[in-house]
Amino acid sequence: MSLTRSDVAAKILADCVAEPVDTFEAFAPVNIALCKYWGKRNALLNLPVNDSLSVSLAKKGSTTRVHRIPGAQEDEVFLNGQPVDKDTGFYKKVVAHIDLFRPLVAGCLRVDTVNGVATGAGLASSASGFAALTRALVGVYSLNLSNEQVSILARMGSGSASRSVYEGFVRWHKGVRADGMDSFARPLPEIWPDFRIGVLTLTSDAKKTGSREGMQRTVDSAILYNSWPEQAERDIARLEHAIAVRDITLLGSTAEQNAMAMHATMLASWPPLLYWQAESVTALQKVWQLRDDGLQVYATMDAGPNVKLLFEASAESDMRSAFTDMDVIVPFG
Amino acid sequence: MSLTRSDVAAKILADCVAEPVDTFEAFAPVNIALCKYWGKRNALLNLPVNDSLSVSLAKKGSTTRVHRIPGAQEDEVFLNGQPVDKDTGFYKKVVAHIDLFRPLVAGCLRVDTVNGVATGAGLASSASGFAALTRALVGVYSLNLSNEQVSILARMGSGSASRSVYEGFVRWHKGVRADGMDSFARPLPEIWPDFRIGVLTLTSDAKKTGSREGMQRTVDSAILYNSWPEQAERDIARLEHAIAVRDITLLGSTAEQNAMAMHATMLASWPPLLYWQAESVTALQKVWQLRDDGLQVYATMDAGPNVKLLFEASAESDMRSAFTDMDVIVPFG
Repeated sequence: MSLTRSDVAAKILADCVAEPVDTFEAFAPVNIALCKYWGKRNALLNLPVNDSLSVSLAKKGSTTRVHRIPGAQEDEVFLNGQPVDKDTGFYKKVVAHIDLFRPLVAGCLRVDTVNGVATGAGLASSASGFAALTRALVGVYSLNLSNEQVSILARMGSGSASRSVYEGFVRWHKGVRADGMDSFARPLPEIWPDFRIGVLTLTSDAKKTGSREGMQRTVDSAILYNSWPEQAERDIARLEHAIAVRDITLLGSTAEQNAMAMHATMLASWPPLLYWQAESVTALQKVWQLRDDGLQVYATMDAGPNVKLLFEASAESDMRSAFTDMDVIVPFG
Repeated sequence: MSLTRSDVAAKILADCVAEPVDTFEAFAPVNIALCKYWGKRNALLNLPVNDSLSVSLAKKGSTTRVHRIPGAQEDEVFLNGQPVDKDTGFYKKVVAHIDLFRPLVAGCLRVDTVNGVATGAGLASSASGFAALTRALVGVYSLNLSNEQVSILARMGSGSASRSVYEGFVRWHKGVRADGMDSFARPLPEIWPDFRIGVLTLTSDAKKTGSREGMQRTVDSAILYNSWPEQAERDIARLEHAIAVRDITLLGSTAEQNAMAMHATMLASWPPLLYWQAESVTALQKVWQLRDDGLQVYATMDAGPNVKLLFEASAESDMRSAFTDMDVIVPFG
């Protein structure tokens, strides 16, 4: 019989003694993967096929405050100050995440999340949201958990939330265990003050296919996906080396090829899955032209049409001239 | 020591007796691959990694006339009525192809090729061109060769020319021999009068990367290419079945996924190889929307930005309304 999320949470919380406080606030950053999380070996527990590696976006992220509301019959969820309808998938996911902790501490909560990232910017808020919620829950119950345990709990809300538990460069180890107890993220020790990320918002059209569904369609129907784990394994090793020696060429080329390979597996699915818009092609061609002209800039894309750019401080001025509406993020600012 | 093209031609022509005539004209059709030729196991002899399957475009193609010009010191080449400069790659390739026959019959030729396909329409003329040239050379020397031998000789000029030797549906068997004597095309017996191909000319910008170079870059740098042979093998079997039972859904979906998978392997190369323009994405999305709306239409693309559409006569009227500047070809007209 397969394990449920509750089973795994119960294992983690088994030795915990809760000392609830009234309220607790936590922040978690958005992260951008340089080697993508693409494909699950266990969809229920969000256990990935491959290791992934990301960089957190410093102050861009989610701030979540939880309040205990004794006597209430239902949890209350607010997003950016607005109450979230109890019929929505969002509400249900948040409650399901609180439920993981409910065997330890009964009672309902009010959850207030503020996303510091504009919707539609192509920066997934579910990763920072579930990481912040997990940290807030751990805080409000004063649980003595390791970062790895927090990462595992966050992962069960949203896979990439396992990485948003940390600042800086982060590697999510896929693990091999069926219960996923070895599938958690850890930060890399390196900092890279000159590293920059440029975010281009090309379109904020809603996606037709969510990334969870897209990932599953790829795994189920793309023969080319068979080669993805090998791609990811090679790229993780290259990225760790690039970060260790601060090599933007190696980091950028590896991250770009990894992102393009992920999109390639989607394109090779049936029906073909293309998150790109016409503007995505135009932006990529501009990046390639700038690179041909000698600028060290590389692109990455997630399950959406927007393009993110990787470069160093030395290229920032040229990049701002080339992309006038680019938001520049300093991950190690 | 590896075999040259001349070695292979000499084997084929070894038992031939030439009875030259003054002039001979031959026609060969353009073909569109439903399962693509992508990757070579031998670049010199154009031996492919995988079997491919195409449909020839009836009267769209190349007409080539060769004249023997006794006493001349050099071959002369004309394309669409214009003399071709002797410094060009085109001239040299044509002469190299004639050279394959020169040990059997000495002397120079004048070659006049007329391509019935507008340049930039995304219909490769090298396949029809080398097939027509090969047939014209075989004709002018009155050589008694089998179709398979003609296909092999055409293949050495341009891989996909091996298929343009025939009308209708054609399968190029990759073969396993080092000399490529078993790597030739054969026609399928089926005809499909209701089958239609719509050609959209989105752009006629010259490609930055030729398909020969693109193919090599993919094989050399795309990890995802490792899964391509499996994709092609599956697709060939599906296509042969689809053609046997005239199943447009199976044929179209297989051909579209095959084309997208080929482009996926390019995208996963380094540097990424993207033949698409913004307009290609717009056209693909339109195709997918029409299909969502119930129209049986499928897309295929070659190493260029243009999109070709596969459908049946019953959808032709709706397709002409949706794509007003589409050229409709009846392969079995």
